[in-house]
Amino acid sequence: MTDAASIPLPDVQQAAVLHSPGDVRLEKLAVPEPGPREVLIRVAAVGVCGSDVHYYEHGRIADFVVESPLVLGHEASGTVVAVGPEVTRVRPGTRVAMEPGVPCGQCRECRTGRYNLCPEVRFFATPPVDGAFAQYVTLDEAFAHPVPDTLSDEAAALIEPLSVAVWANRKARVEPGMSVLVSGAGPIGLLCAQVASARGAARVVATDVSEHRLAVARRLGAHETVNVRERDPSSVIADADVLLECSGSPDAIASGIRCVAPAGTVVLVGMGDPTVPVPVDVVQRNELWLTGTFRYAHAYPAAIALAASGAIDLDGLVTARFGLAETERALRAARQDPTALKVMVHPNGTNIE
Amino acid sequence: MTDAASIPLPDVQQAAVLHSPGDVRLEKLAVPEPGPREVLIRVAAVGVCGSDVHYYEHGRIADFVVESPLVLGHEASGTVVAVGPEVTRVRPGTRVAMEPGVPCGQCRECRTGRYNLCPEVRFFATPPVDGAFAQYVTLDEAFAHPVPDTLSDEAAALIEPLSVAVWANRKARVEPGMSVLVSGAGPIGLLCAQVASARGAARVVATDVSEHRLAVARRLGAHETVNVRERDPSSVIADADVLLECSGSPDAIASGIRCVAPAGTVVLVGMGDPTVPVPVDVVQRNELWLTGTFRYAHAYPAAIALAASGAIDLDGLVTARFGLAETERALRAARQDPTALKVMVHPNGTNIE
Amino acid sequence: MTDAASIPLPDVQQAAVLHSPGDVRLEKLAVPEPGPREVLIRVAAVGVCGSDVHYYEHGRIADFVVESPLVLGHEASGTVVAVGPEVTRVRPGTRVAMEPGVPCGQCRECRTGRYNLCPEVRFFATPPVDGAFAQYVTLDEAFAHPVPDTLSDEAAALIEPLSVAVWANRKARVEPGMSVLVSGAGPIGLLCAQVASARGAARVVATDVSEHRLAVARRLGAHETVNVRERDPSSVIADADVLLECSGSPDAIASGIRCVAPAGTVVLVGMGDPTVPVPVDVVQRNELWLTGTFRYAHAYPAAIALAASGAIDLDGLVTARFGLAETERALRAARQDPTALKVMVHPNGTNIE
Amino acid sequence: MTDAASIPLPDVQQAAVLHSPGDVRLEKLAVPEPGPREVLIRVAAVGVCGSDVHYYEHGRIADFVVESPLVLGHEASGTVVAVGPEVTRVRPGTRVAMEPGVPCGQCRECRTGRYNLCPEVRFFATPPVDGAFAQYVTLDEAFAHPVPDTLSDEAAALIEPLSVAVWANRKARVEPGMSVLVSGAGPIGLLCAQVASARGAARVVATDVSEHRLAVARRLGAHETVNVRERDPSSVIADADVLLECSGSPDAIASGIRCVAPAGTVVLVGMGDPTVPVPVDVVQRNELWLTGTFRYAHAYPAAIALAASGAIDLDGLVTARFGLAETERALRAARQDPTALKVMVHPNGTNIE
Repeated sequence: MTDAASIPLPDVQQAAVLHSPGDVRLEKLAVPEPGPREVLIRVAAVGVCGSDVHYYEHGRIADFVVESPLVLGHEASGTVVAVGPEVTRVRPGTRVAMEPGVPCGQCRECRTGRYNLCPEVRFFATPPVDGAFAQYVTLDEAFAHPVPDTLSDEAAALIEPLSVAVWANRKARVEPGMSVLVSGAGPIGLLCAQVASARGAARVVATDVSEHRLAVARRLGAHETVNVRERDPSSVIADADVLLECSGSPDAIASGIRCVAPAGTVVLVGMGDPTVPVPVDVVQRNELWLTGTFRYAHAYPAAIALAASGAIDLDGLVTARFGLAETERALRAARQDPTALKVMVHPNGTNIE
Repeated sequence: MTDAASIPLPDVQQAAVLHSPGDVRLEKLAVPEPGPREVLIRVAAVGVCGSDVHYYEHGRIADFVVESPLVLGHEASGTVVAVGPEVTRVRPGTRVAMEPGVPCGQCRECRTGRYNLCPEVRFFATPPVDGAFAQYVTLDEAFAHPVPDTLSDEAAALIEPLSVAVWANRKARVEPGMSVLVSGAGPIGLLCAQVASARGAARVVATDVSEHRLAVARRLGAHETVNVRERDPSSVIADADVLLECSGSPDAIASGIRCVAPAGTVVLVGMGDPTVPVPVDVVQRNELWLTGTFRYAHAYPAAIALAASGAIDLDGLVTARFGLAETERALRAARQDPTALKVMVHPNGTNIE
Repeated sequence: MTDAASIPLPDVQQAAVLHSPGDVRLEKLAVPEPGPREVLIRVAAVGVCGSDVHYYEHGRIADFVVESPLVLGHEASGTVVAVGPEVTRVRPGTRVAMEPGVPCGQCRECRTGRYNLCPEVRFFATPPVDGAFAQYVTLDEAFAHPVPDTLSDEAAALIEPLSVAVWANRKARVEPGMSVLVSGAGPIGLLCAQVASARGAARVVATDVSEHRLAVARRLGAHETVNVRERDPSSVIADADVLLECSGSPDAIASGIRCVAPAGTVVLVGMGDPTVPVPVDVVQRNELWLTGTFRYAHAYPAAIALAASGAIDLDGLVTARFGLAETERALRAARQDPTALKVMVHPNGTNIE
Repeated sequence: MTDAASIPLPDVQQAAVLHSPGDVRLEKLAVPEPGPREVLIRVAAVGVCGSDVHYYEHGRIADFVVESPLVLGHEASGTVVAVGPEVTRVRPGTRVAMEPGVPCGQCRECRTGRYNLCPEVRFFATPPVDGAFAQYVTLDEAFAHPVPDTLSDEAAALIEPLSVAVWANRKARVEPGMSVLVSGAGPIGLLCAQVASARGAARVVATDVSEHRLAVARRLGAHETVNVRERDPSSVIADADVLLECSGSPDAIASGIRCVAPAGTVVLVGMGDPTVPVPVDVVQRNELWLTGTFRYAHAYPAAIALAASGAIDLDGLVTARFGLAETERALRAARQDPTALKVMVHPNGTNIE
């Protein structure tokens, strides 16, 4: 292990640990030692994701159950401060965006390039793997992606949800000239809309039930918006080439599919009920292609490049920030404030340079 | 109009005309005159499709309503007996399989090569366009596909449902080595299974609720079968690369999707309820691609080649045949006999050579 | 035929007619009558393309020989002034970009959506079809694409070369995050670079032998440039995801292919020698995909949308403009001035609003 | 290490070792110990490939130079006789086809599923990695593919060249109904033709300069053949959907490309001169897609399934077999006998059951 600089690393760090629903405690944990191909990262910024809030409130997501104390947080950036003996790609001092899932590399999915579907993946903040609401974390060097200095720490952390949007748009093969309907204008929907524009989409229409979110959408990526409490989206866009469904709402899925042109593509990004009524007659008659996304693969480099080019506004999504001791407040803020978009935790202090 | 031979064509022909549900009458109609690029075909054999039976029983399918007398039948073969003045591709005397839908050639779908999605298509036996339960029909020459003499008249007629199966397999990109689940072992399912084998699929599993149909499936294309009344298909095949859903049953859709491996493909071929509960969590977690088929495009030449090569057994599907005067019996037989697979009508007589 | 307005249309117009190499004459021709589905367009602006210059200098391109007087010009915009009786999509008064090739709609290529490969296409300024160095032309309504008022007449004319670039980038599937090498920084190369950026390419490197063109490239679309007289491009970019070859130079093809990463794509856009030495060992070892483009299909709407969004600068390509009487000067200027990029002809006068 | 059975494994084995061009010696080597995830295989049959002959004659292929003694042979089958401590997929006693290249699993190519392009791959019989002209070899368990008892040892060895053909056909997306031109009727060409047929190709035309090979081709996979000494292939097939070029001959590449229909695919499988004149005007005008293959990825399971189904005749390719002591004769036989197709070496004796 090579230290980053002359500054000695501590042996002990602080982390926000979830013990049971509604019970997050600031605790002292050992600073981990990086493995041979791992790096140790001092965490700079971590975004609060809906899945963090869900674990905080319910202690589980589907089959993933928090059975022992767990550190949440998987949208993270930081600075490499030490590296394992076989590390060759990154050096101490490098600022990185952390891709939070490290796949096995051996299974059928890994070997065919779909590492996001690896059944053995170790993913931050998914039981029993700890996440990044901590001062220090270790990560496989191949998943610690250097970022340019032009990206803020918060933007570097938000490369994670941006990768979700990059992946969804890639699945949909959004092309210049296309019309894209984005249902759901939360952080993922807003990023999907921005990426669609960055790929040259001619028309990006966002829908939501919140006027506040729709106003943000008009500022960040959408050319038009529809409040689905007032109008059916098909009254505004009846021939979308692509539907990026980011709400998880059964109504949005059903009404969105009816807005798609023949041979169009539907990507289910948002998660909701496990089983949903789908108008398969429309899928058949129009020969739509429908798929879903599960995280992302090979998306971080593209996400970093898009953010670095200025095509995507990540900092504009941040609506609040907290220190590590305030992690529980951060988790609550993400839920309670209807105008909250992205709440950030700064495990090593909130001095925003 | 050039006559096929010295035999003079009649002015009047007989056709089986649907007037209302349950009311089919043998009537005299004028022999039509082919347009400039059309051919006149003496009909040899016509398969009875489930859609014919549905129109016969209910007088409608979804938004298509039989409002004036209609000739049913769209799985047809015959011999060209006359051609319009601008016809260049086929000559009188040519035996042809009839592709029953002629698209407009001008719309977005036509120009992008998806002519099966043309909203202006004129399709046999779809109100208000007459079909082929008649002695003579006209057809655009580009849709009258010559067949080799090795194909029987009935096999040439059944190029139509075979094209459905060719199209479904093409959408699914079935490849050598793949595992394919075919749910529903009616004529379309049996053909889908055969085409999957002809593309090199390593394992083709067919499901149905009828032991009789499963026995036929084991003879025609399926390596294994599952009676879903007895077992869940996932107990037999848990990692299908492809699901070709040919039953239209909501249960088959839901249980079939759970049999598909990550990144696999689901093609909804069978039609049933317009809206169906779909396990979207599986679609998302496994990033499945789901689509539906609507008829076919560019499939006839491949279907004819597969049938001519001997890779597909079409004649083996035929379980009964009737003359034109017996068309109503044919429509009923397709429904009433549980062992019926494909019932044929021979508008110009049932002399099978 | 419906007139655009109360202004009566003339019976006679002026056009620049090529009689033999180096012999272009301003002549009086009849104003054509639009066919049933055609529109009559008063031509506003026409770009001079390298192919126009080649016909002017040599009287032929490959197998296309100017055997009778021919009007050149195929990058054109104008205003619809009259429409045929079956026209439904555009009205008199509409400003349009003219897609200059009208395919047959019946052949294998048309029916499969590749209308640019139609062997029966009628393409402006390709013997024996007249082009747009004239005051009025007729065009199939489906190929007269409305443009928004924010696009200048010249920009609307340059939708044609932009469509070439849209098509090349679509073939190459340029994605956010990709590295793209564009060899040849003439008008097509500059547009290819701009479109690559508009699709989110992270790094666009342009090469040429002219410092002047490279300086323009840095202004219009390229992040970096290489003068291949001084350096091999592989010293700057060794792992391009895509090569868009726009020079037609054998050296650029061979050296460019060596810059492409494994599984990358090479698109030959520029035309030069019919047979060229290709390093097939690199194509094999790296499993590159190599293709060429022939005009474009389904590209105008995307090109118009990109130009209208401001992502592409078309007006910045124009370096000179001439009236119809000066067409021959325009053809010469395109060749003689080393700083010329795009030379325009205004058949109805050069009043640039 | 778990032994296969009660039979003790020897410490020492025999292998055929290449010391310099034309100098192969039978030598005693240690039986290797399998690594944690490796298996030890008693080699049953090994095919002689053109690359083995090339190393034997020239001591190098392109940049790969035999600098120290090397065991050749990479088309191999055998029986697992011992397994490393972490092996879970295969047991001692299992008959396997050996996929001879084990990639690194970490690089960009591995992570994106293109492991055949891994720059760190360790490939049998490619300096400095030893091959299979030996009694025992070790192999990563994931690359030791079980074969059914219906496949002979020789057929199991020939899964390797069959995988080349499976990969070439997969790249070309050969579909039912397509016309496929295979240039070069050596073992790879013959297998490409058979796989094309097994995918449902309607017309497979093979070309060669040897009447003997063309006669074999007519027996194994090709519907028609052309002796290119007598006729240009375009006189027989002018609209191939796919060209699988297996000769490496510049003439075959140039003339073959002229036989391909618009939008068709050209796959360069055979290797020859590093740079070859290519008619790029045809590639452009017809928008062909041209690529090359480098070994294969994810092809063994499909190849085994095709061979097991009876769709492919591998045993019919074998024209001679030798014991390990006769390896040099085998290498010469492959070159000297004009009727030789596939020559086999049986390192543990030639008792063909």
